[in-house]
Amino acid sequence: MPNISKRGENAPASPIRKLVPFAEAAKKRGVTVYHLNIGQPDILTPEIGMKAVREADIKVLEYSHSAGFESYRRKLADFYSQYNIQLTPNDIIVTNGGSEALMFAMMTCMDNGDELIVPEPFYANYNGFAESLGVVIRPITAKIETGFALPPVSEFEKVITPKTRGILICHPGNPTGYLYSNEELLALGEIVKKHNLFLFSDEVYRDFVYDGCEHTSVLSLPGLDEHTIMIDSVSKRYSACGARIGVLVTKNKTVYNAAMKFAQARLSPSTLGQIMSEALCETPKSYFEEVKAEYDKRRMIVVNRLKAMDGVLTPTPNGAFYAMVQLPIDDSDRFCQWLLEDFEYNKQTVMLAPGTGFYATDGLGKQEVRMAYVLNEMDLHASMDCLEQALKVYPGRTVNAEMQHTINN
Amino acid sequence: MPNISKRGENAPASPIRKLVPFAEAAKKRGVTVYHLNIGQPDILTPEIGMKAVREADIKVLEYSHSAGFESYRRKLADFYSQYNIQLTPNDIIVTNGGSEALMFAMMTCMDNGDELIVPEPFYANYNGFAESLGVVIRPITAKIETGFALPPVSEFEKVITPKTRGILICHPGNPTGYLYSNEELLALGEIVKKHNLFLFSDEVYRDFVYDGCEHTSVLSLPGLDEHTIMIDSVSKRYSACGARIGVLVTKNKTVYNAAMKFAQARLSPSTLGQIMSEALCETPKSYFEEVKAEYDKRRMIVVNRLKAMDGVLTPTPNGAFYAMVQLPIDDSDRFCQWLLEDFEYNKQTVMLAPGTGFYATDGLGKQEVRMAYVLNEMDLHASMDCLEQALKVYPGRTVNAEMQHTINN
Repeated sequence: MPNISKRGENAPASPIRKLVPFAEAAKKRGVTVYHLNIGQPDILTPEIGMKAVREADIKVLEYSHSAGFESYRRKLADFYSQYNIQLTPNDIIVTNGGSEALMFAMMTCMDNGDELIVPEPFYANYNGFAESLGVVIRPITAKIETGFALPPVSEFEKVITPKTRGILICHPGNPTGYLYSNEELLALGEIVKKHNLFLFSDEVYRDFVYDGCEHTSVLSLPGLDEHTIMIDSVSKRYSACGARIGVLVTKNKTVYNAAMKFAQARLSPSTLGQIMSEALCETPKSYFEEVKAEYDKRRMIVVNRLKAMDGVLTPTPNGAFYAMVQLPIDDSDRFCQWLLEDFEYNKQTVMLAPGTGFYATDGLGKQEVRMAYVLNEMDLHASMDCLEQALKVYPGRTVNAEMQHTINN
Repeated sequence: MPNISKRGENAPASPIRKLVPFAEAAKKRGVTVYHLNIGQPDILTPEIGMKAVREADIKVLEYSHSAGFESYRRKLADFYSQYNIQLTPNDIIVTNGGSEALMFAMMTCMDNGDELIVPEPFYANYNGFAESLGVVIRPITAKIETGFALPPVSEFEKVITPKTRGILICHPGNPTGYLYSNEELLALGEIVKKHNLFLFSDEVYRDFVYDGCEHTSVLSLPGLDEHTIMIDSVSKRYSACGARIGVLVTKNKTVYNAAMKFAQARLSPSTLGQIMSEALCETPKSYFEEVKAEYDKRRMIVVNRLKAMDGVLTPTPNGAFYAMVQLPIDDSDRFCQWLLEDFEYNKQTVMLAPGTGFYATDGLGKQEVRMAYVLNEMDLHASMDCLEQALKVYPGRTVNAEMQHTINN
């Protein structure tokens, strides 16, 4: 039998999905599993999207332009102008989800063996994309104690080598919920200018910022047009994950034209997904206000419940709909599997994403889990009840970790 | 400004789409352009597909399983059983078009610098996929004089090196229309077993075979389960290119499991596309009979018209809906651009794909073009009228090439 590739061997299993078989087994045993592991919102997709699909007069379901329908790109340019991002349709490539946009960005700007600096913890699937393209991720650790703020510039400069090609941020952050301040963005701008790097910014959670915060896109930063590549998607904005429609946006024409060659090779993004997404551009502002209020409520439920648990540390996230939480446990992979295999409370349990998968540095994240607060109020409370009980009985619990540490040694 | 990657620089522009700006300019001048350059059929998509989408009760457009809906994979397994391909749903990964399936296959089986043998001329976008992943294509030339039959085994063995990881065929062939015989497939099977290689087979044109020929999938070949990976798509089968739904199919579990890691990283294929494609599995056999009869008619129009033109050589294709045609011209890139820029006949012209983009060997394909016979009878005749006239007046024409050659020297 021929061997598979090293990248095929080395690609990590998704921490978000790898425990699915254990969840399925739990459900077969009659246990209700609350899915806080995955950012699949329960928020209704605006009806205007499916309406457009239903009413589309499609006799032949054709390819679109490789960059996406021009009419859709025009609407997107309009959409972004409200965020102080000035674009033309020719700055935008519509992609099969934000995932493909990120793949195109990496392919276009980085060769095999090139290095990409990413503040960790980061969206776990960046590992899969990087591994598939031979891109080497150089992590810089953001600390839970500082709420996952951007590490100081000196930390970036320590890991820059001649092979460094760019910096990738998720803004606001998955899994941290951290929203970079304008000062932090300007600092990043200085680094990429000084070292002639690309700045990739995954902004798929742009619309989810709380506490009166405002989101600034890297595309709005002055003097960085040649450096910045923005990734976005309709998945979270409109609770339309299954549309698989994202965008790569850049004002750097060399990058755009090269990315277009990869876009042409795969012909086009989904026609139905584009019809839906184009219609969704007409979603009224009130929708976002309602959705944001709902997430805000959920966020505070999760944060308040967590803060009331012994030995649990969670910064209050300013954006997205995730919390990266430190738990009094020995090993987050073991704990998350145990929740599904060996634990239940009132015939219920909770599925979480182990923190280890969100770090590139070995050994980090063993006491952390990611929670997506994408369920309704009642289910969130039930999830928190499960977690609270679980932390009392989990065999690998380490409440009073200091004391345990002393005892163990 | 930071430099883009070498792969971004080196990726070839699609020969199928790179002349689009010239076509757009011609249309602006009021010239009708017949698109024989691209395999976008005018055949109606079976109504059953859009009906399912319209009737789907979607409140939240969610991700699907990363391998695609299990219900769809079950129907696919049923579908393939009629072709003597025995599968379970767990042998199938649903992808964003055949393009993504091929990317996953390459990532999973090949590392940067690994070599893939591909009979040329081949589907031009293989170049883009290979370039993006650092895969090196080693072409073996199939000759127009033999109708693009599989080159002899000795030709394959000449280019096998320690870095060779597989052989990729398109069966039936785009751009050649060539359908491999069972003897040819068995010969390929012997090579991959002897040299421990993978055999990738792009079978997206499986349903289009003529003259009573039958298609044999590589998945039906005995003793090759660990070697074979099949790529397929709904794009051509149901004239549903815009659905962007394909599949990667393999019985090799190591390959499957590694490919699933890449599939999980990009979350899922299009939900709407899958709903449509699942419904399309119910398309009655009569649809295929009608469509095949229609293509067969078109095929013979093109072949007969071409055979009647001076200095034109075209094998009669047995499958797909393309013809790779040798024309009495100096340079196919120049000719195809000239057709759009400088030629018109009754305010009409024809767009073709230059042959050079379908070869990896420099200099080949300069006298060849690919034609997709995807237009109706009347438009095809009009296209052939244009071509016939064009060949009479094209400044770089080489009818009586032998004589011209003598004169020029």
